[in-house]
Amino acid sequence: MIQAENVSNLIVNRIYGLKMGIKRRKTRVVKVGNVKIGGKNPIVVQSMTKVATTDVGRCLGQIRRLADAGCGLVRLAVPTGADAIALSKIVAKSPIPLVADIHFSPRLAIASIEAGAAKIRLNPGNIKDRKDILRIIDAAKLHGTAIRAGVNEASIRDLKNEVVPEAKRVSLMLREIKKYVRLFEKRGFTNLVLSAKSADTVRTIEINRAISDTFDYPVHVGLTHAGLPEDAKIPSAIAIGTLLAEGIGDTIRVSLAGGSVEEVRFGLRILGSLGLAESDEPELTVCPTCGRCKVDVVRLAKQVKRSLRGVSKPVKVAVMGCIVNGPGEAQDADLAVCAAMGKGYIYRKGKKIATMGEDELLDALTAEIKKL
Amino acid sequence: MIQAENVSNLIVNRIYGLKMGIKRRKTRVVKVGNVKIGGKNPIVVQSMTKVATTDVGRCLGQIRRLADAGCGLVRLAVPTGADAIALSKIVAKSPIPLVADIHFSPRLAIASIEAGAAKIRLNPGNIKDRKDILRIIDAAKLHGTAIRAGVNEASIRDLKNEVVPEAKRVSLMLREIKKYVRLFEKRGFTNLVLSAKSADTVRTIEINRAISDTFDYPVHVGLTHAGLPEDAKIPSAIAIGTLLAEGIGDTIRVSLAGGSVEEVRFGLRILGSLGLAESDEPELTVCPTCGRCKVDVVRLAKQVKRSLRGVSKPVKVAVMGCIVNGPGEAQDADLAVCAAMGKGYIYRKGKKIATMGEDELLDALTAEIKKL
Repeated sequence: MIQAENVSNLIVNRIYGLKMGIKRRKTRVVKVGNVKIGGKNPIVVQSMTKVATTDVGRCLGQIRRLADAGCGLVRLAVPTGADAIALSKIVAKSPIPLVADIHFSPRLAIASIEAGAAKIRLNPGNIKDRKDILRIIDAAKLHGTAIRAGVNEASIRDLKNEVVPEAKRVSLMLREIKKYVRLFEKRGFTNLVLSAKSADTVRTIEINRAISDTFDYPVHVGLTHAGLPEDAKIPSAIAIGTLLAEGIGDTIRVSLAGGSVEEVRFGLRILGSLGLAESDEPELTVCPTCGRCKVDVVRLAKQVKRSLRGVSKPVKVAVMGCIVNGPGEAQDADLAVCAAMGKGYIYRKGKKIATMGEDELLDALTAEIKKL
Repeated sequence: MIQAENVSNLIVNRIYGLKMGIKRRKTRVVKVGNVKIGGKNPIVVQSMTKVATTDVGRCLGQIRRLADAGCGLVRLAVPTGADAIALSKIVAKSPIPLVADIHFSPRLAIASIEAGAAKIRLNPGNIKDRKDILRIIDAAKLHGTAIRAGVNEASIRDLKNEVVPEAKRVSLMLREIKKYVRLFEKRGFTNLVLSAKSADTVRTIEINRAISDTFDYPVHVGLTHAGLPEDAKIPSAIAIGTLLAEGIGDTIRVSLAGGSVEEVRFGLRILGSLGLAESDEPELTVCPTCGRCKVDVVRLAKQVKRSLRGVSKPVKVAVMGCIVNGPGEAQDADLAVCAAMGKGYIYRKGKKIATMGEDELLDALTAEIKKL
């Protein structure tokens, strides 16, 4: 039997030869500049600039801050010809590939492709003439530009241009996307990412499951118009998290009526929670406390968190308040403290290394943290 | 074709006769005092008291605040005989059924059942003697007490009492639970809720999927030892949200190293995001803004949110910054504003009712909100 205390769980799992974690659904690889979306490539976090694209300086500032935060692709709205011209200047200086957000105008789609957008986001449903869509596809093919073809729940209508009841929207969105894919494939274009956006958590999950069941193109996942950050974060975590946990999603965007960098950080936290992104931050496991607990675990945990500031390694630290699960959680932690029955225990890699008074725990753990 | 603008979506969906939303997996109904868990009963949000159970007054204060917040069941730790005696006093005055949290001691399990706990939480793995488990089961049967039988990842060991590698834990937890269920069923006891807790998001999802695939007993879902609220909320929303979105979970507990009421509020928000709990709070849809946006949508949204304070109806309000999705989102909203191309538009139930200058939007919408 392996001495699990002495080797990391990862190694143990390798020895056992067992797969763990989320099995991502198989998708094709789509190239967006030097970023690859789909297949086994890391899930790309996206965001958008939130100032006029004509404001080249501020856009570049936002893009650089986003790239620093871990953003892999940035989208910019291109609602006018002036924005397309500005886009070419921004592309020239951007540290990461850019996506042009296009609505209604085939002219601006083609101008954005020529301006060097690595991908354009297109809702083919709002380009009226089929011939125009084919012209856009041809331009994208010529320039090696990827296309995100998608539909937004807010834009779907029935044949009489009337509002579609909620229960029919998922199937209608899927029908639209099928139509687009047929059009693209018929033109020999497969550098395609698919998306369907809704402000509703459940329908977002349902339409993306349906897309993923139907196609093997990479899927762009996110909740749209989710609201102010305090309202939008929970439904976004649930919608994006559920899909990722089911193996769906090759690129994500958290949509917040707030800062772009906040969108990226939150997206990375969703990925991190599911083991889909690496982290260089310590992880703090804390018991929720109950009637068994004789010390102020929450206070101790906050103090430990303060001691962990400045540690930029993905270490696991556990702060536990009783013997029921304390020693168990300690096994998985690089360092753990457990306060139980009037005594304090310190664990390193699951091994008890010291016993002391409860009031000495913090200092002892802080000393151990410094050794990390 | 139905004039969808004039009838609520719910009615339209009824007319269309289509089912929407999450399909919950079929589970048996378990009675916990006057609360029913499982089947088509509403998903019950739980929490725990966070002071010594012997402190009857403070426990009752916490329980009342939890019940007011929407908590359906409260669990209390019973680590000593004095706690069991206190429990009987708390049961007598509690507005909602109580659950006794038992570890190691068959004596305290039986004392808690006799004290009037509506359910006990038992980890049969930490009751050494099989005969003792049977005595507990018999006592629960006699008193009509439900049992949550569960396992905690931190407590599982292999046959040599050694740490189990992560990749083997889900199958080992399931094996344990199968063993418990066999024991309970053999004794003719089926008033059973199952649970398996882990501090890991992905394994929490996996073990609960496995439990739900294997049994039709109601499932208690939650992430354990998730940490301080700022760290615990995202993984909790993802783990619990994913399972609920897959139809799994009849009762949930958000475990935060923080206040119990915060646990309940957060649990209810998870349910609300998935349409699994009713809300009497307004819902604010806001576009995330981009380069197309010519007004300060975030500022406007914050002002609208302030105007909505005091409104305790589940109205939907949308604040949108351009014409791409503005009118579309307006369709689903009771009220909407859309600022686009230098003008402001107000929508009521999807119908444009006024056009004005952008700077007049807030006052006009506030006046509409007052009419709600």
